[in-house]
Amino acid sequence: MTPAIAIDIEDIQAASCNINVHRTPVMSCSTLNDLVPLDIELFFKCELFQKTGSFKFRGASNAVNLLTSCESGVVTHSSGNHAQALAKAAQARGIPAYIVMPKNAPQVKKDAVRGYGGTVVECEPTVEAREQTAAKLAEETGATMIHPFDNPHVMAGQGTMALEFLTQMNEQGTVLDALLVPIGGGGMMAGCSTAAKSIHGSIKVFGAEPAQVNDAHRSYYSGDRLSNAKDAVSVADGLLTNVGELTFPIIQKNVDGVFTVTEQEIVRALHLMWVRAKLPIEPSSAVPVAVALYNSDFHKIAKDQGLKKIGIVLSGGNVDHARVVKLFEQYL
Amino acid sequence: MTPAIAIDIEDIQAASCNINVHRTPVMSCSTLNDLVPLDIELFFKCELFQKTGSFKFRGASNAVNLLTSCESGVVTHSSGNHAQALAKAAQARGIPAYIVMPKNAPQVKKDAVRGYGGTVVECEPTVEAREQTAAKLAEETGATMIHPFDNPHVMAGQGTMALEFLTQMNEQGTVLDALLVPIGGGGMMAGCSTAAKSIHGSIKVFGAEPAQVNDAHRSYYSGDRLSNAKDAVSVADGLLTNVGELTFPIIQKNVDGVFTVTEQEIVRALHLMWVRAKLPIEPSSAVPVAVALYNSDFHKIAKDQGLKKIGIVLSGGNVDHARVVKLFEQYL
Repeated sequence: MTPAIAIDIEDIQAASCNINVHRTPVMSCSTLNDLVPLDIELFFKCELFQKTGSFKFRGASNAVNLLTSCESGVVTHSSGNHAQALAKAAQARGIPAYIVMPKNAPQVKKDAVRGYGGTVVECEPTVEAREQTAAKLAEETGATMIHPFDNPHVMAGQGTMALEFLTQMNEQGTVLDALLVPIGGGGMMAGCSTAAKSIHGSIKVFGAEPAQVNDAHRSYYSGDRLSNAKDAVSVADGLLTNVGELTFPIIQKNVDGVFTVTEQEIVRALHLMWVRAKLPIEPSSAVPVAVALYNSDFHKIAKDQGLKKIGIVLSGGNVDHARVVKLFEQYL
Repeated sequence: MTPAIAIDIEDIQAASCNINVHRTPVMSCSTLNDLVPLDIELFFKCELFQKTGSFKFRGASNAVNLLTSCESGVVTHSSGNHAQALAKAAQARGIPAYIVMPKNAPQVKKDAVRGYGGTVVECEPTVEAREQTAAKLAEETGATMIHPFDNPHVMAGQGTMALEFLTQMNEQGTVLDALLVPIGGGGMMAGCSTAAKSIHGSIKVFGAEPAQVNDAHRSYYSGDRLSNAKDAVSVADGLLTNVGELTFPIIQKNVDGVFTVTEQEIVRALHLMWVRAKLPIEPSSAVPVAVALYNSDFHKIAKDQGLKKIGIVLSGGNVDHARVVKLFEQYL
């Protein structure tokens, strides 16, 4: 058994001083508020406007900036938002970043990493090949591995988003009753739930997941960290990862529930966010919105517990627009 | 000759108190600032987040709310943003809105008007049919015609956007050197230039237009109000209208220059705004962004006059996403 590695509010407050991020806006949309049942009001924390287009820059930046010996650079394997985030964080510190990507990753993602000064190292498109290539690179170059979520500095960095969110709500005189946060590997949820529960003990923190990739849901309610089937897929392609070894105990401790939504609910929420809220989020970010709009278990709890002001994390906006248009055609 | 109908800052200040609009955010994007030449910094006034998805709600709302006798409602002909805006403004005041639309207008636009409680009246798809149908409706129902731009109350309403923009910049301690505003019929430009020049006499106000629909450009530099060819088209379909009889003299008086951009420049700017700034604006709103990025005459003036902090009006975000994706494929 791995010893629990906890993070606390002080790590997150320190991270806030340690990273140079955009203070992303909190937005709302009256049409969405009209569509959501009960008297629920939604407040969106817009990390799509974060540097590199997602919240991942917070964690990557904190991890890179906390390295004491870093001239050999950093390495990770990712074809998603962590790849760009780590490349930019390393660029900001003036050190190399080696990003291992499957050779069939979209050209646009490789170009984005290179655009932030990162070195793309291609490998076969299997999990084993990615891990082995990254480990070999770390050994050869002396670069430090920065895991996308199972890393306390990364978790603390992601937690700065909830800290900032609650500060912004406080500035506008609104107290959130609950937060809805998507769960992939769980780094954002570990950081955000730690921050939210420390600052504001009575706030409820709920996870949101696609029903087709519901490992966090099953893990949370069974108490055992379970995996998704290898071939499990979802339109919310940022949430395919299994919940992490280090993030899971933190989630078990802090989180008040995990809700799932269908593929069609995700795309319906995505469409409303694009068409009515004018926020071009990625499909993964539509998952907590879909929970607020369509999940009857969530509505029951919101009604029973009087949860009205709900904060929703919009994690990112790095999308292939043509793919989103196809999803609209396919599901709506 | 039509007598000049001027609007002044007091009309615009009164309009600000008279309308119930969103205070839309001012945003910026470091990637865009890196791409624009010289030391230019861009500040975006995000009217895509305005009620009904465009600035048009400001003017429609002011015009509706200033009617003294209004129980017979309002009428206009428009298949664009003014249609939705007028329907919603009328709904807010509890009066009927009759919107004349060509029968081949997209279903989604008719649905949007009906969604705001407006009555869609279809006509043949010619300018004459639209005008005649609207005039007949006004006569039959007693409804008041609200022109989309050649109406001083509409112009004053649109001007509230510049008033709000400069107030927001002042709050964040930034003085804009210039404003870039798209010109279609010129209602927004008439209102915004009046507001900006009154508040901040040294600010430069520039118009932005597609080169293929450059009536305002030719009119401004010739001194005569000229028209576009009947078959003139642009991807910026909100700017096809000829500059108005009432708006043109105001534009002549206030505006410091009009710049044009090609279709490809508009789509390149649109793509950057969608992909990098994560602001899903409509093609018309990309026109002033394209001027800032690509127009060498603008760059020369900016350099010569030391214009560095440039405010750009993002007029709206009502787009057909599939069409935008096709534009990206076609032009990039």
